[in-house]
Amino acid sequence: MSYKKVDQQDIKYFTDLLSSQNIKLDAEQIAQYAHDETEDLVFSPDIVLVPQNTVHLAAILKYCNEQTIAVTPQGSRTGLSGGALPLFGGVALSLEKFNKILQIDEKNGQVTVEPAVITQVLQEAVAEKGLFYPPDPASKGSCSIGGNLAENSGGPKAVKYGVTNEYVLNLEVVLANGDIIWTGANVLKNATGYNLTQLVVGSEGTLAVITKAVLKLIPHPQKNMLMLVPFKSAEEACEAVAAIFRKGLTPSGMEFMERDALLWTKDFIGDDSIVIQDDIQAHLLIEVDGNVEEVLMNECEQIMEVVEAFDVGEILFADSQAQKDKLWNLRRKVGEAVKSQSIYKEEDTVVPRYELPKLLKGVKDIGNQYGFHSVCYGHAGDGNLHINIIKGDMSDDKWDNELSTAIREIFELTVSLGGTISGEHGIGHVQKNYMDIPFGKTELNLMKGIKDVFDPKGILNPGKIFPD
Amino acid sequence: MSYKKVDQQDIKYFTDLLSSQNIKLDAEQIAQYAHDETEDLVFSPDIVLVPQNTVHLAAILKYCNEQTIAVTPQGSRTGLSGGALPLFGGVALSLEKFNKILQIDEKNGQVTVEPAVITQVLQEAVAEKGLFYPPDPASKGSCSIGGNLAENSGGPKAVKYGVTNEYVLNLEVVLANGDIIWTGANVLKNATGYNLTQLVVGSEGTLAVITKAVLKLIPHPQKNMLMLVPFKSAEEACEAVAAIFRKGLTPSGMEFMERDALLWTKDFIGDDSIVIQDDIQAHLLIEVDGNVEEVLMNECEQIMEVVEAFDVGEILFADSQAQKDKLWNLRRKVGEAVKSQSIYKEEDTVVPRYELPKLLKGVKDIGNQYGFHSVCYGHAGDGNLHINIIKGDMSDDKWDNELSTAIREIFELTVSLGGTISGEHGIGHVQKNYMDIPFGKTELNLMKGIKDVFDPKGILNPGKIFPD
Repeated sequence: MSYKKVDQQDIKYFTDLLSSQNIKLDAEQIAQYAHDETEDLVFSPDIVLVPQNTVHLAAILKYCNEQTIAVTPQGSRTGLSGGALPLFGGVALSLEKFNKILQIDEKNGQVTVEPAVITQVLQEAVAEKGLFYPPDPASKGSCSIGGNLAENSGGPKAVKYGVTNEYVLNLEVVLANGDIIWTGANVLKNATGYNLTQLVVGSEGTLAVITKAVLKLIPHPQKNMLMLVPFKSAEEACEAVAAIFRKGLTPSGMEFMERDALLWTKDFIGDDSIVIQDDIQAHLLIEVDGNVEEVLMNECEQIMEVVEAFDVGEILFADSQAQKDKLWNLRRKVGEAVKSQSIYKEEDTVVPRYELPKLLKGVKDIGNQYGFHSVCYGHAGDGNLHINIIKGDMSDDKWDNELSTAIREIFELTVSLGGTISGEHGIGHVQKNYMDIPFGKTELNLMKGIKDVFDPKGILNPGKIFPD
Repeated sequence: MSYKKVDQQDIKYFTDLLSSQNIKLDAEQIAQYAHDETEDLVFSPDIVLVPQNTVHLAAILKYCNEQTIAVTPQGSRTGLSGGALPLFGGVALSLEKFNKILQIDEKNGQVTVEPAVITQVLQEAVAEKGLFYPPDPASKGSCSIGGNLAENSGGPKAVKYGVTNEYVLNLEVVLANGDIIWTGANVLKNATGYNLTQLVVGSEGTLAVITKAVLKLIPHPQKNMLMLVPFKSAEEACEAVAAIFRKGLTPSGMEFMERDALLWTKDFIGDDSIVIQDDIQAHLLIEVDGNVEEVLMNECEQIMEVVEAFDVGEILFADSQAQKDKLWNLRRKVGEAVKSQSIYKEEDTVVPRYELPKLLKGVKDIGNQYGFHSVCYGHAGDGNLHINIIKGDMSDDKWDNELSTAIREIFELTVSLGGTISGEHGIGHVQKNYMDIPFGKTELNLMKGIKDVFDPKGILNPGKIFPD
């Protein structure tokens, strides 16, 4: 692919279209838009454009399409797969001005929202009306809905409530050529033509730019209970996950954390309220929710019965909202904490949940073979394991030259267990050269064909998803 | 589109491939495969092929693709939009031999199933393991999973549990050129490339032929309660629907039936156990489910409070499983009963649920204007209203020449209310020339582009979804 560099004539066009504060050209401004939260990767755009409305956004795309200028849509740039990195320079198209909740439709249980609304802001706004928008990535306080849609984000609640795509009813999107369309209708069921809505969700900004989303809301559960269960064996913790579901229970949170994940996070945020005994290798953080206290108590008792059949330490029940917040904060900070320790690479594997113990053991075996330490944690109820490979004192040579082979082995194991290589982070830039593992040429060619239908000149978020 | 008629040379190829009982050529056999349950429409294929395995099915598609022979995939032929009608003759490709439940994976809460398994058979098989596959079209005793996937079917449980597409994890499909692929992975969350799975679901056999499906199962609710609420105003019944949800309740069934729908069904099946008072204009059949009796009782009481604010008759609580079965049977037979009365046309409109009263009133107004009687019923909790337009004593001339204008008005109203023209039946043959109402040229061209990627020669189920 070859893209035109943004030149003076292009800048003149953009300057005529947008007000000057919505065009960013100086190095310091550009630098802000040159990274997301993926490792230490930096790719500078030629220019940052911040359209204030859909008409301007459509004009930018139409122009860039005519000129063959690469366009990378950006939200809050909190992604973990490099989806918002302007790999080919060109235009960084920041959606930051699309930050309004347009309508909370209580009567129909729907909300119409612009993509730059922060996920937690949306959740809190609808919760005030007794409504619930469940998808809640760990970064919910800083990530935005548009990025959640682009990457089909999950989070701890997904185990009971499902991931982002299950809440999307309809999208307003702008195509590469500047056409503005709605992908569906504002309805709970829809059998009217191909599902363009579900095709755009998870397409990482490569098919169209989302400018409005109509999302489904559900009644907000009124109560929850939370417990932290320490296990003497990490594999047993993974086994307990499947055992709880086989009992017919569906917790609203089922998070797995290896020993180091919790230990490093305690250090990172300076929390010493939780003591981790020497013989503890992993924890499960388990939440149940609903409206009736007795029902939740009963579910907790059943969960206790299941986990106590394993070799567990003392179970901690959160007895106040403050303690719940503290435990969830610990879980939410694991990613940052682990990454603050060393150079790292994070993989976002997902398998059928019963296969988690095999995946975990396999990752450790591969680590032993290649000489790396890994810290694993994630949404065990969904079978979604985040694997953080820690550089530590691994040599630069090994890190640079052998690690991709090790990652390939991890992904091959994942796929052999019925899983795939990304559960909720997306493929973006950093996983794209592993896409031959879950998919053959035929499947990838279908995807490329779809890309060509939406974006024949390939200007939208180039260099993502598809292998080089 | 121009397709080759099946000739002697083609028959020779098929005869070499399949055993003779799996090739149907005589008129009586052909006639069976020339219709589904859509009105009285009949389109005869040139030949019926019944492959016994995926390899044979792939060989048939590869051959037909090379020869440009139209192929219409067929399941149980219970569809209501003409999706299984061989409009262009050619091959009727019956999946009837793909009728096995391959694996119930209790450990992961998944089932792998072939497409010709009857929906109810699947439901009962997994229920024996304490697991629940919720999508349950009214025809669940005769429709098959493949058709449910093709049309993205719903049913009464969809209001709480969602429609078919929300239970599909992964599909094995055969492409028009005979290539066999899996669309995704057997996981609950997936952010790995474009969502081919969700693209194939609801594509009505026009993109690929489904040969295996991996479906998500959930724990089976242990108890339910059912009530039939008579309303003196049909519009008030629709208003009550939204009021119940605004109370924060999510019933597992919320069915609306106009007076005539229930009356005609009582006659049709000879049930006189339920008396419909003269002043009753509509009924809601409301079910709640869960595991704890007291919780369900409490939900029923809250529902009673809501509906009693409207002008209702005496509420009937089902007090035995037999009575529940009888009430559900009445509901499930409405379609057949209404259709047994007269020539009819059925539309499958869906709107945001709060807009139902407006839709119902609009339909009646349009009926008055064009001189037709309509009987409406459906899944009110989803905003999904089945509108049966009854020919009755309308003249043939008006029926043939004016009705499509009236239907167009109904669909325009539906779309203006934020809805769309099919909630769960699909577009198929009979709604395709209304696709310009929910979608503009741009959206339809995207869909056509996708069709071309999957099936460049257009052999798969031609004449469906897209306007003539």
